[in-house]
Amino acid sequence: MANDKYEEPTVRTEPIFQGKVISLQVDTVRLPNGETATREVVKHPGAVGVLAIRDDRMIVVEQYRKALGRSQVEIPAGKLEPGEDTAEAAKRELEEETGYRCEGVKLVCSFYTSPGFADEILHLYVAEGLTEGSANPDEDEFLDCEAITLETAKRYIAEGRIRDAKTIAAVYAWQLFRLTGSYAP
Amino acid sequence: MANDKYEEPTVRTEPIFQGKVISLQVDTVRLPNGETATREVVKHPGAVGVLAIRDDRMIVVEQYRKALGRSQVEIPAGKLEPGEDTAEAAKRELEEETGYRCEGVKLVCSFYTSPGFADEILHLYVAEGLTEGSANPDEDEFLDCEAITLETAKRYIAEGRIRDAKTIAAVYAWQLFRLTGSYAP
Repeated sequence: MANDKYEEPTVRTEPIFQGKVISLQVDTVRLPNGETATREVVKHPGAVGVLAIRDDRMIVVEQYRKALGRSQVEIPAGKLEPGEDTAEAAKRELEEETGYRCEGVKLVCSFYTSPGFADEILHLYVAEGLTEGSANPDEDEFLDCEAITLETAKRYIAEGRIRDAKTIAAVYAWQLFRLTGSYAP
Repeated sequence: MANDKYEEPTVRTEPIFQGKVISLQVDTVRLPNGETATREVVKHPGAVGVLAIRDDRMIVVEQYRKALGRSQVEIPAGKLEPGEDTAEAAKRELEEETGYRCEGVKLVCSFYTSPGFADEILHLYVAEGLTEGSANPDEDEFLDCEAITLETAKRYIAEGRIRDAKTIAAVYAWQLFRLTGSYAP
């Protein structure tokens, strides 16, 4: 396949919104057939998620997600700070949300969460050398931490309590590691 | 864990934008500690993706993603039409984007793509009983179709050509199926 042969050059950008987490713009683009179309584009600073396994249990947090109107069980995760190294962000979010510290993290994979309308990229890390400590979440962040077996993770998926891309990817990675010794997709 | 114990009731909703694909609002919420905070919420109609394997090759499409400013290789996917059954949508998108028809689809898993700011849910299906035909993409949709081996999929991931949540999940599911006979996370 030829890369970018269907590129859509921007004719005009209309800024719509600049928030704390995201911004939104509407781009008018030139299509390969010469017509124009609009593309709604959400800009996001990017995020990290951490697969942290201790004693064959995955460390997860339960928190309320306003966008969903319900609580979800997810791996520890968070937005990148401006200019922050992604591996450092992974270690920071793990410790802030769960209290666990780790000796190091290794990248499993990175993925765009919603390429149809957003530039958010999620870097999924696996933590190595975990030690317990005290959580220290952000001031507007309320969550509970739990360490669950693979069996419980599968039950949470069946019940819809685990239902987000990064945690589903982490559970796949965990299973693949148990079968093959590799977390990579 | 107690579900929704950290619920964030809405104090006020400010509608920001209503587009073709997404809408955006900013909710002011009451936090569990009595303070208020704002939550930026993107509403999306939901989407489907299809893992379609024929002769041990995965059917993928390459298309330009304006939000990313580059082309990506992804499994066939698309937004739900209003009121549309998700399984029917999966069959429709597979045929529109690739020309392949299938006898049926089975749900692998569903996941929220970006629960921190969006309600988009992606339903990942696996297609069964594939037959080839002619593609019929939307009028503003330009893409190429290819059938790739697992080895090529892994190379595309390493090169960053495959780099989105649904396709990464699909490649994990495919590998797990080859090892265990089950696609489920």
